[in-house]
Amino acid sequence: MHFASDNSGTVPAQVMDALVNANSGYTMAYGNDELTAKVQSEIRRIFDAPDAQVFLVATGSAANSLALASLCHPWQTVFCSPVAHIHEDECNAPEFFTGGAKLTLVPGDDRMTPQDLRATILGEETRGVHGPGRGPVSITQVTERGNVYDLETLQNLCSVAKEFGLPVHLDGARFANAMVALGCSAADMTWKAGVDVVSFGGTKNGLLGVEAVVYFDPAKAQHFEYLRKRGGHLFSKHRYLAAQMAAYLQNDLWIDLAQQANAACSRLTQGLRKHNRVEIVNDPRANMLFARMPRGWHQAAYSAGASYHLFEGSMDAPDDQPLMARFVCDWAQTSDGIDQFLDLLPAG
Amino acid sequence: MHFASDNSGTVPAQVMDALVNANSGYTMAYGNDELTAKVQSEIRRIFDAPDAQVFLVATGSAANSLALASLCHPWQTVFCSPVAHIHEDECNAPEFFTGGAKLTLVPGDDRMTPQDLRATILGEETRGVHGPGRGPVSITQVTERGNVYDLETLQNLCSVAKEFGLPVHLDGARFANAMVALGCSAADMTWKAGVDVVSFGGTKNGLLGVEAVVYFDPAKAQHFEYLRKRGGHLFSKHRYLAAQMAAYLQNDLWIDLAQQANAACSRLTQGLRKHNRVEIVNDPRANMLFARMPRGWHQAAYSAGASYHLFEGSMDAPDDQPLMARFVCDWAQTSDGIDQFLDLLPAG
Amino acid sequence: MHFASDNSGTVPAQVMDALVNANSGYTMAYGNDELTAKVQSEIRRIFDAPDAQVFLVATGSAANSLALASLCHPWQTVFCSPVAHIHEDECNAPEFFTGGAKLTLVPGDDRMTPQDLRATILGEETRGVHGPGRGPVSITQVTERGNVYDLETLQNLCSVAKEFGLPVHLDGARFANAMVALGCSAADMTWKAGVDVVSFGGTKNGLLGVEAVVYFDPAKAQHFEYLRKRGGHLFSKHRYLAAQMAAYLQNDLWIDLAQQANAACSRLTQGLRKHNRVEIVNDPRANMLFARMPRGWHQAAYSAGASYHLFEGSMDAPDDQPLMARFVCDWAQTSDGIDQFLDLLPAG
Amino acid sequence: MHFASDNSGTVPAQVMDALVNANSGYTMAYGNDELTAKVQSEIRRIFDAPDAQVFLVATGSAANSLALASLCHPWQTVFCSPVAHIHEDECNAPEFFTGGAKLTLVPGDDRMTPQDLRATILGEETRGVHGPGRGPVSITQVTERGNVYDLETLQNLCSVAKEFGLPVHLDGARFANAMVALGCSAADMTWKAGVDVVSFGGTKNGLLGVEAVVYFDPAKAQHFEYLRKRGGHLFSKHRYLAAQMAAYLQNDLWIDLAQQANAACSRLTQGLRKHNRVEIVNDPRANMLFARMPRGWHQAAYSAGASYHLFEGSMDAPDDQPLMARFVCDWAQTSDGIDQFLDLLPAG
Repeated sequence: MHFASDNSGTVPAQVMDALVNANSGYTMAYGNDELTAKVQSEIRRIFDAPDAQVFLVATGSAANSLALASLCHPWQTVFCSPVAHIHEDECNAPEFFTGGAKLTLVPGDDRMTPQDLRATILGEETRGVHGPGRGPVSITQVTERGNVYDLETLQNLCSVAKEFGLPVHLDGARFANAMVALGCSAADMTWKAGVDVVSFGGTKNGLLGVEAVVYFDPAKAQHFEYLRKRGGHLFSKHRYLAAQMAAYLQNDLWIDLAQQANAACSRLTQGLRKHNRVEIVNDPRANMLFARMPRGWHQAAYSAGASYHLFEGSMDAPDDQPLMARFVCDWAQTSDGIDQFLDLLPAG
Repeated sequence: MHFASDNSGTVPAQVMDALVNANSGYTMAYGNDELTAKVQSEIRRIFDAPDAQVFLVATGSAANSLALASLCHPWQTVFCSPVAHIHEDECNAPEFFTGGAKLTLVPGDDRMTPQDLRATILGEETRGVHGPGRGPVSITQVTERGNVYDLETLQNLCSVAKEFGLPVHLDGARFANAMVALGCSAADMTWKAGVDVVSFGGTKNGLLGVEAVVYFDPAKAQHFEYLRKRGGHLFSKHRYLAAQMAAYLQNDLWIDLAQQANAACSRLTQGLRKHNRVEIVNDPRANMLFARMPRGWHQAAYSAGASYHLFEGSMDAPDDQPLMARFVCDWAQTSDGIDQFLDLLPAG
Repeated sequence: MHFASDNSGTVPAQVMDALVNANSGYTMAYGNDELTAKVQSEIRRIFDAPDAQVFLVATGSAANSLALASLCHPWQTVFCSPVAHIHEDECNAPEFFTGGAKLTLVPGDDRMTPQDLRATILGEETRGVHGPGRGPVSITQVTERGNVYDLETLQNLCSVAKEFGLPVHLDGARFANAMVALGCSAADMTWKAGVDVVSFGGTKNGLLGVEAVVYFDPAKAQHFEYLRKRGGHLFSKHRYLAAQMAAYLQNDLWIDLAQQANAACSRLTQGLRKHNRVEIVNDPRANMLFARMPRGWHQAAYSAGASYHLFEGSMDAPDDQPLMARFVCDWAQTSDGIDQFLDLLPAG
Repeated sequence: MHFASDNSGTVPAQVMDALVNANSGYTMAYGNDELTAKVQSEIRRIFDAPDAQVFLVATGSAANSLALASLCHPWQTVFCSPVAHIHEDECNAPEFFTGGAKLTLVPGDDRMTPQDLRATILGEETRGVHGPGRGPVSITQVTERGNVYDLETLQNLCSVAKEFGLPVHLDGARFANAMVALGCSAADMTWKAGVDVVSFGGTKNGLLGVEAVVYFDPAKAQHFEYLRKRGGHLFSKHRYLAAQMAAYLQNDLWIDLAQQANAACSRLTQGLRKHNRVEIVNDPRANMLFARMPRGWHQAAYSAGASYHLFEGSMDAPDDQPLMARFVCDWAQTSDGIDQFLDLLPAG
């Protein structure tokens, strides 16, 4: 009954095996090894993007911040959702890596609408050297609130960015979960929609700690290696990043893992829908569910050992007060674990 | 015959086993897991420093830059050797993380002398708000040129720093190799000598990628967690960093690994000393040897598959021109590999 | 008919005279001159703050950014109005000087309410090392939309900040205009209300370019001189800053100038109120008026040589479309100029 | 007897008159006024550089730091003299504005030699993403030690930079004094020699506080306006910067002022040369003299009211110990003042 996050569970055996297999002989350091080259090639294949530039880093914050730093002048602003990870959960890393760029929050839902995005960009317009310049648009897919942009919206958001000549970054910490939810290709969800750079997440979907930053426009990648090294994010023993990512991509393991996670979330959602007193808040097509239920139910679940985070309200509330919680299913979530949790809930 | 670096080889089985063993069940993320707590405790024990603050990161540049950023105002300068890794090999990461602090190079050998350090600190003195203020002293042990500071020199360097009220950082990327070479304790080489913060390296001595930043004065650590997170260096799945470090410390594995590496380097040194035309440049008590030998000998070694870096001169030189090379022995270096290399060299 | 800004007009003769008078003999540079000391003393007297630390800089952006940098860690966020100058008109200078801190916009009117401020601070609460930490509250008085916080609101805003242990910065680019509007003392509008640091503006109220940064808590000023010098904002020939500020303070010139500006704005407001088709948008107690009137009226005014900025809408709009404009009265504004403008407007 | 600095004296009447004359009517702010345009045009004429981009700032540190920031990536290093103002006297402003670039000190005299520069650049070569990349060369003319590069050396330094594709910045805080000393044109000392950007100083040669940053390659200036505004260095009432610079250029006032200063220094030098116990240290062709004389002589001079800085040694030394001092002559230095000082010195 662990739904706290998709970074608190284990990694699949294939990934561990790959680490062990990579642990043989001498290789060149700093990404100049064959395994890294192979992974770069595989990612180009998966994205159907033969010219893409591919770089590996170990954390999502590094991936996002370095990507934004490569797209943005310090006097510009990044357009993103008010609940974007880059805004709420990275301790000002994007501001740090960009040299002090700003984030402009597009009001509304956690999924930006093209209309709101356009209006917000237009709002940052007329101050020339005085105000921040318009910088990249950063889209999170799956969003922090567990929603998935459909392809058309994604395309429209990118079109708005292009209308103003702005580059588009996709924070794909849960890329695979979104792709599986949409039933589309990696290309559909990125360059075919208009994305210029993607943080292609592995960590939340079964790796120990690897993300790929993928540039579809190689020209935008020209400073990435300097930015990565200067940020202390260039791994010397690069093969151990590459090995994880290689296993992730092999035989579509990454897709299988995301399918497992999404299916678990779907089972959880269906179980909760049976309760009148449970309100499903988001559209849980991927692996995250936000739901409100009475404080007393949370109490019972916590007491029975369930692990997840409240996102609204306080456990000091009255017993029947509905409190919103986040439930994240990782790839290793079992039907038993979910059913065990569902069985804790009273009827009603 | 791989002497290119101690970051191009494998990790010992115990480390891989520890990763596999840690791969079970759910834990709290971001370092709030039991394994991380255990490692922190172990490091306090090893350093005989019950109040030390311990943080794990994945790269040496991160460890050094974050440590310096916690010790330094942006308008100050860090005193270090002209060949310090923080100066030559981190792509201005220290300048980036400190917000633009300067590095002041203490002239002389790669091992700073207390006299030179004092003279250099005195040289940064009289300009008040105009010039950079005096900031931390950073000492590298083992040095980048393969030398080891003896304890007395280390103490004297720290005393000079204390004389001016300056904190001391030790870049211990090869901490274990130095400690083994000196036959001292971890405490002797750090807080007992006057070191305030150490980058306690694991990566170059057999880990996939883990370094610990250890503060002996907890007050100096107060901002570290913010600096680490803001730098994108806080691993969510922290257990996989902790597992490596736990294995490293268990049963003195870290000391065994360093002994193996140092012994290999010693064997290589002894073999090379038999040749009149080979000049040993450094005092190779740890795991790095710098030596000059004729260009033709390098040519022959390269042709036979030996791997190492020239540090001076060019392979376009005449055949009998002495060229300096660096030979690094990692923990997995074998006697056979060394003898195979030595056998390539002609008499003379 | 120049209402474009209070930075496009002249400076009073007293200020020029003071520059000429200061232009005699040798003095110490960098603020170590007698005139600077005298000005610091005068400012302490005016603010009834004998321990205040006082520093001169030449631009408002420098004053604000340096003040914020001294109050804020890079991983924190500054709370301010969505239309604050520090947010909209300083090209990310606050982010630059703070090393990448964030600005969190308190929603609502250009005048923050204590309730909205508290709610916004509470919203930045629970993410520990992940989210930005809570940093200073920055209040603009006169606001960018020409409104004046009454003393009670100012006190309440500061109380909210203190409740969370946050320091308060006051952007007083138009400090004198606000003070005159409120009929209060400089102390009332700053430390007595709970302000820790004020950017005490001179440039918009008749100086060539001087602002004072005044710290009521000297401890908060400890790094200011380094921050100022590192930002290239320490004037060598400091006497010419000090001379301007000395003249500004002498015989209450600064108050006279603000009274003239406010009175001019009041005359303009009264004139406009006579027109049904003019909508006064703000509460113009200081020297700025925001008003909507038909596009055709703007056209006519522009054609007749009036100078001011539209803040909403476009001159391509239909003739009777109301468009909002900003009218700023500087100290040198004449009744004739205002009447000349008012005479241009048709009845209605 | 004021030789402490060329920033402690007065400004010529023409400059004050120009300020007074500019103090009339309304103008556009932020450099969009006619006087600024006229000054830009004048500077283009003086430099014989019709395409030059010209920007005004108020301090030399701002001019230098902004110029370097426009020429340099944060992961690069600036080549300069070990006694360069940008290294010793700007409190890490260049590091701040460049986002953490490094300064690499070219060893030797305060005047770099082309050979030393080439060797130093070659020394920063082989580390790819690891080490700092090669960035701009910054040359100070007049040097901080009062020497003047002859045109040939200047050309050769620039040629070395060009050999490596590096841009050249000239710190011309005392540009006019050097130009007068060389008897050359402004073009000779800049773009004709190979300089890309010059900090064209006015403050040390008679202005209250104005420097021009002049780009001979307009492409390099593309980000300057953002950098300046983000640094808080864009003056709103720009006319008062422009007025100073306009007066400075009118009727060759700037050249006259430098001639006066240089002549005064020459008189002082000739007077000192008559004493056996005085050692002239630099080649004082401009307005700065470095000389050693017995401590007792300094004591006597100080007691009689002379003002200047010791650059070596301490006033606690024995009476006959030679101590080096710096004597700076500003434009307003009189023959009487110099003779008065010379008369203080004993024979010998």
